[in-house]
Amino acid sequence: MKTKIGILGYGNLGRGVEQAVLRNEDMELVAVYTRRDPASVKTVSGVKTVSTDVLDQGTEDLDVLVICGGSATDLPEMTPKYAAMYNVIDSFDTHANIPQHFANVDAAARAAGKIGIISCGWDPGMFSVNRLYSLSILPGANAYTFWGKGVSQGHSDAIRRIPGVLDARQYTVPVEAALEAVRSGRNPELTTRQKHTRLCYVVAEDGADKAAIEKAIVTMPNYFADYDTTVNFISMEEMKRDHSGLPHGGSVIVTGETGSTGNKHVVEYKLTLDSNPEFTGSVLAAYARAAARMNQAGDSGAKTVFDIAPALLSPLSGEQLRHDYL
Amino acid sequence: MKTKIGILGYGNLGRGVEQAVLRNEDMELVAVYTRRDPASVKTVSGVKTVSTDVLDQGTEDLDVLVICGGSATDLPEMTPKYAAMYNVIDSFDTHANIPQHFANVDAAARAAGKIGIISCGWDPGMFSVNRLYSLSILPGANAYTFWGKGVSQGHSDAIRRIPGVLDARQYTVPVEAALEAVRSGRNPELTTRQKHTRLCYVVAEDGADKAAIEKAIVTMPNYFADYDTTVNFISMEEMKRDHSGLPHGGSVIVTGETGSTGNKHVVEYKLTLDSNPEFTGSVLAAYARAAARMNQAGDSGAKTVFDIAPALLSPLSGEQLRHDYL
Repeated sequence: MKTKIGILGYGNLGRGVEQAVLRNEDMELVAVYTRRDPASVKTVSGVKTVSTDVLDQGTEDLDVLVICGGSATDLPEMTPKYAAMYNVIDSFDTHANIPQHFANVDAAARAAGKIGIISCGWDPGMFSVNRLYSLSILPGANAYTFWGKGVSQGHSDAIRRIPGVLDARQYTVPVEAALEAVRSGRNPELTTRQKHTRLCYVVAEDGADKAAIEKAIVTMPNYFADYDTTVNFISMEEMKRDHSGLPHGGSVIVTGETGSTGNKHVVEYKLTLDSNPEFTGSVLAAYARAAARMNQAGDSGAKTVFDIAPALLSPLSGEQLRHDYL
Repeated sequence: MKTKIGILGYGNLGRGVEQAVLRNEDMELVAVYTRRDPASVKTVSGVKTVSTDVLDQGTEDLDVLVICGGSATDLPEMTPKYAAMYNVIDSFDTHANIPQHFANVDAAARAAGKIGIISCGWDPGMFSVNRLYSLSILPGANAYTFWGKGVSQGHSDAIRRIPGVLDARQYTVPVEAALEAVRSGRNPELTTRQKHTRLCYVVAEDGADKAAIEKAIVTMPNYFADYDTTVNFISMEEMKRDHSGLPHGGSVIVTGETGSTGNKHVVEYKLTLDSNPEFTGSVLAAYARAAARMNQAGDSGAKTVFDIAPALLSPLSGEQLRHDYL
């Protein structure tokens, strides 16, 4: 019996989940659900598109619904709503609002006898798991998280909203000296500016005031003002040729001590990803498998990556896992 | 209520577990159990030493017994025996015999209503968990494991058995070119010789035939013959000054693809450890916490790191974990 997956929302992440499901032989992609006119949405795999009006009836034959929406407004509403009907999983990443989101999903999922996994992907997600493992093994250790080199879509969008900008791509870049200082085990105190730089590629309208655009970027509060930011103006052709991908990655580095003599230990988990949405979609697919299994075993309620034993992510049996991976 | 820990066996690993328990404020070290005369064993922490004759009565007030014995002969006998009386955890690492060991511990632990975690540490252990996570996220990916730079005690012991050798230390060293080839995502096929080299420091007896010792090392089957091995003769003073530690580490590198266009992803988990036994002991302590909790929740039987949700390793509540680490 294949695990029947539905995808809600068909942006970059929804397409990433679609690709991941295609590579998991024990999964079946049932449909992409959309708030748009289904006839207007063509899927890469050719799987059918279905209106959310149909999904809302709660009668779709799904083991897990993967909810691919934005954390600002979509997921706080969608995930509890659908957790009352289906096992669900999302990638909610607004950190300050996780307690409220967890509580809302937990209440809905428990009442329905369903599983709702929230905040899944790589950060939050695999990075969180690595922080937890390493900090549990090394009490009193310090965890540092670096992002990049990779495209930040939020920062790219912020630049695109500046008058005179036709297109933009922003790369978050970790500072190599900061990475080395952390790896040395010296436990440096690092400011925002010391950890990451921001590298921007901008296509300006003909005749636009490039100096004004650059100033608008580097002084933008929250997004750029606290960072060393470099702005490069390029042509639309260069943008399409050199910056069409969505690479990302980063490192979680935990440094701690053991013993009476203070032996040092460094644990580094590093991701280098050609496609942020395809990797995130792949994490969601593996955890969707876990959601279906936990629910089949009688469990319900909200879960995070912390609550899920790694064996549940794999299609292999316990015996196979011990043989192949232990 | 603190988690009451007993340690069976007081070699390097037992002392590493002792140091780890001292740094976990929710744990209490009850005793070190030994097959030797307890009066002859002085612990670093001053905790009492108790004969295994007492432990064998099955009446010690322990939440978890951490069994620090050798995989060749100690653990196959000890872990099932004590799983019939206590929650237990070991670091069994003879890969081919894991199915039998798991079955033996499972039968004993189930019958007694206890938990028996086997094969815990960093490899098997944290490396295994990372292979499982990454290979579940990226179906069809390749996992490469490199060890070192670090001291292999088995290889050091093998050199010490050669006539004319007073002391020896063997470092396993990963080949940087192999690491780079793997990180590139090219999925190289690597021979044993291409992945690691072996670096030996040897103290010879006065007048010993160094050429004969070197030949005995580099041609030793299983241990050295398949590797590029370097032998350095040093003085006993140099050995004590420069090679008294037990550093180790290594990397698990998983490379895989997603999507229809074959986007590449590299996941690397890297350990750099000043003290192999103290880090291994720290992993055992965290999983001992999990063993106690799983048993309190009514679970029993043999488990590996694959079966244990990461949250169980931490003394923090689910709410705190989501706030601090997610």
